[in-house]
Amino acid sequence: MLFHVKMTVKIPADMDPQVAARLKADEKELAQRLQQKGTWRHLWRIAGHYANYSVFDVESVEALHDTLMQLPLFPYMDIEINGLCRHPSSIHTDDR
Amino acid sequence: MLFHVKMTVKIPADMDPQVAARLKADEKELAQRLQQKGTWRHLWRIAGHYANYSVFDVESVEALHDTLMQLPLFPYMDIEINGLCRHPSSIHTDDR
Amino acid sequence: MLFHVKMTVKIPADMDPQVAARLKADEKELAQRLQQKGTWRHLWRIAGHYANYSVFDVESVEALHDTLMQLPLFPYMDIEINGLCRHPSSIHTDDR
Amino acid sequence: MLFHVKMTVKIPADMDPQVAARLKADEKELAQRLQQKGTWRHLWRIAGHYANYSVFDVESVEALHDTLMQLPLFPYMDIEINGLCRHPSSIHTDDR
Amino acid sequence: MLFHVKMTVKIPADMDPQVAARLKADEKELAQRLQQKGTWRHLWRIAGHYANYSVFDVESVEALHDTLMQLPLFPYMDIEINGLCRHPSSIHTDDR
Amino acid sequence: MLFHVKMTVKIPADMDPQVAARLKADEKELAQRLQQKGTWRHLWRIAGHYANYSVFDVESVEALHDTLMQLPLFPYMDIEINGLCRHPSSIHTDDR
Amino acid sequence: MLFHVKMTVKIPADMDPQVAARLKADEKELAQRLQQKGTWRHLWRIAGHYANYSVFDVESVEALHDTLMQLPLFPYMDIEINGLCRHPSSIHTDDR
Amino acid sequence: MLFHVKMTVKIPADMDPQVAARLKADEKELAQRLQQKGTWRHLWRIAGHYANYSVFDVESVEALHDTLMQLPLFPYMDIEINGLCRHPSSIHTDDR
Amino acid sequence: MLFHVKMTVKIPADMDPQVAARLKADEKELAQRLQQKGTWRHLWRIAGHYANYSVFDVESVEALHDTLMQLPLFPYMDIEINGLCRHPSSIHTDDR
Amino acid sequence: MLFHVKMTVKIPADMDPQVAARLKADEKELAQRLQQKGTWRHLWRIAGHYANYSVFDVESVEALHDTLMQLPLFPYMDIEINGLCRHPSSIHTDDR
Repeated sequence: MLFHVKMTVKIPADMDPQVAARLKADEKELAQRLQQKGTWRHLWRIAGHYANYSVFDVESVEALHDTLMQLPLFPYMDIEINGLCRHPSSIHTDDR
Repeated sequence: MLFHVKMTVKIPADMDPQVAARLKADEKELAQRLQQKGTWRHLWRIAGHYANYSVFDVESVEALHDTLMQLPLFPYMDIEINGLCRHPSSIHTDDR
Repeated sequence: MLFHVKMTVKIPADMDPQVAARLKADEKELAQRLQQKGTWRHLWRIAGHYANYSVFDVESVEALHDTLMQLPLFPYMDIEINGLCRHPSSIHTDDR
Repeated sequence: MLFHVKMTVKIPADMDPQVAARLKADEKELAQRLQQKGTWRHLWRIAGHYANYSVFDVESVEALHDTLMQLPLFPYMDIEINGLCRHPSSIHTDDR
Repeated sequence: MLFHVKMTVKIPADMDPQVAARLKADEKELAQRLQQKGTWRHLWRIAGHYANYSVFDVESVEALHDTLMQLPLFPYMDIEINGLCRHPSSIHTDDR
Repeated sequence: MLFHVKMTVKIPADMDPQVAARLKADEKELAQRLQQKGTWRHLWRIAGHYANYSVFDVESVEALHDTLMQLPLFPYMDIEINGLCRHPSSIHTDDR
Repeated sequence: MLFHVKMTVKIPADMDPQVAARLKADEKELAQRLQQKGTWRHLWRIAGHYANYSVFDVESVEALHDTLMQLPLFPYMDIEINGLCRHPSSIHTDDR
Repeated sequence: MLFHVKMTVKIPADMDPQVAARLKADEKELAQRLQQKGTWRHLWRIAGHYANYSVFDVESVEALHDTLMQLPLFPYMDIEINGLCRHPSSIHTDDR
Repeated sequence: MLFHVKMTVKIPADMDPQVAARLKADEKELAQRLQQKGTWRHLWRIAGHYANYSVFDVESVEALHDTLMQLPLFPYMDIEINGLCRHPSSIHTDDR
Repeated sequence: MLFHVKMTVKIPADMDPQVAARLKADEKELAQRLQQKGTWRHLWRIAGHYANYSVFDVESVEALHDTLMQLPLFPYMDIEINGLCRHPSSIHTDDR
């Protein structure tokens, strides 16, 4: 089941740089593990913004929630979620 | 070059059903041709809405504009566009 | 899988009253059938508004989309959707 | 009398973790007590957000206000309230 | 139980003036009847707007909804509702 | 002359509790004095919010401004003001 | 007593041009009469918009309301009103 | 050339009171100098808000910008600017 | 003097195509004349939208207003205007 | 390829003035280098705001992103981006 997620990261200006660097490294490692597993199917940087558009492939709403909650940067993110369906005009067999 | 596009379709309630059906058929045909060419790389229906999230792969801003302008439903769409870049945490070689 | 849906109905002021009455009757019949099946798990009128809050229990995003699209009043609705999870403080066994 | 409440929790990033943990534990305990009493009739986590949709069953507006005001996390919540009525298409005897 | 209601009236520019006049006369008659009964406790015109602030005294959310739904101008109103409680600094015995 | 005022109080989370308690006590004392004088004609708590709806009866815009500016919590309030007139359907002789 | 008023005029595209011309002529005549009386103290066109900023000098909220309601274009205007006071830094004796 | 400016002042709650008092005194002195010169043609306090509506008479956009930038409170202001023209219905010779 | 203008064109769906074509031709002709005169200094299409960003070089606010008002499509445009100044970091001698 | 960018700078009020001065000096130096290279084609200050409108000429979305990300003030900017195309009515050969 696919979900489109927009994540906008807002790290407080006064966060200790070492803490921030560690959070980002942990986030990257988990993001790559989730991509390898096929859970995080697409991940694009939005040009000019500290934000991304992502597509997640999960078994349920609960699984999506658990995945997002474990992201190290979750407490610093604004998140927008939309469910995705196969589009009737789509010919791409992997967009579903 | 990738662009993320959200299209929300708002066909006037009083449009002649035959005109609407023809517009939608033409839209579908062009959408499929553009997918086959690789221009319209992703196309998802947003669940519960007459709207889609799309990713276009074009050579320039001008090419994106020309592609969108020729869509038969363009006059009835609200459109939001964002440029996409490779995300530093991405491992997907096709997300760029 | 549960989804929280807010539907706001906006029937055009100039719709033929007989057409409107028929749409509403069909909507009611389908709404009741979906409640009996357990798909439309909760349905409340929002006080003072021609709108409702609903909870749907479906097998997938696709199933939610198909359910909403077949509602006779769908073309006249503004729709907001949010996925629901079990709340960690919840003791209600049916809120999941 | 039913009220639909959306609560979005915004705990300041610099709150002492022990204070935050205590507030959350107290919140959970009270939430469960109110569920057992039947006051807090539904409680769902909104997927991907530190927020919930709830339905309260109270005797008056005053009772709703007093209930919300005593929540330990109340000072850190954005709250939206809507009164709920039986929907004319509803067949659920407990949605009222 | 008190509710604060803001009603903004938007009569379509192309409504037959006789129909509009009839709707307004019926609205006025019912508004005065509800004031006499004590249901519509306050009614002020908002300066410079075709809108009012009102306070209703009803027995339940359901009663508020039924009262608003029977207003002849209801289909042409934007409505905002908020429950009211006695304010801890209030000395007015009738503001509750 | 009547003005409808909505006040939303936003006391900074890090204000010294003693300072806050003093501000609130002063606010309450002044609010009651203004009610006794007839200046602060109505005062309701908005259910579920640290906010109120009020009606002021003053001699001029200047007098309204001076009244609001002297409230101890004024620096921590978001304020919305609307002038009120007698509504043509009103039968309440005190709503003017 | 001074009020700052922003009026944005939205004449329907399908209004009979003769009706529109007559409304505008009547509006202009009344606007000039009110300026001569001193009621409509300032009147500026907002550059690039079919809108104006105005300052009215009236005896009460009620008088402001009655003045605005009699404007021939009132039914086609969006209106925003703010009370004005003498600014503590002002040296202009006529800005009050 | 006239510009309509709305200034909303937002002094941080934790600013040293002496620094704030000095900024306000400097602001007042400059505001009065600019009024005497005719640059700051109108200055009203918006009732109930720490904000003003002003009209500036300057030779160019550049001059307006330079005037606003030198205001001691500029870093703490939200500013909205609109160009003003003579209104075709205006009879005031000084509203231009 | 430079002004940045965003124009979004919203031609009603039911406008006679011949009338629309004539308006657009007239608009184009005037736009080109104003470019030749140097008044309309920049004109870009915003990709994916029936809208443009423009820079006008005019002698006054009044001149800007008169220029925009004479555009044949003015009645169908949403317009946003901002004054432009030389940027302190600019090295372009023509950006002023 | 042209992109229109609006940058609004929001430097925290409590930033060390020396750090702020250094950031601004670095920003200016880079801005001028990018203008000399032709990448930052236009740069205007928006009158009355700590903000600018800019036009960038880059080879790709990726190049735009990399350019913006390296700006010393990037972490303190709100950024809005729109792709630009040649306008069909444009006669300026450099607006493309």
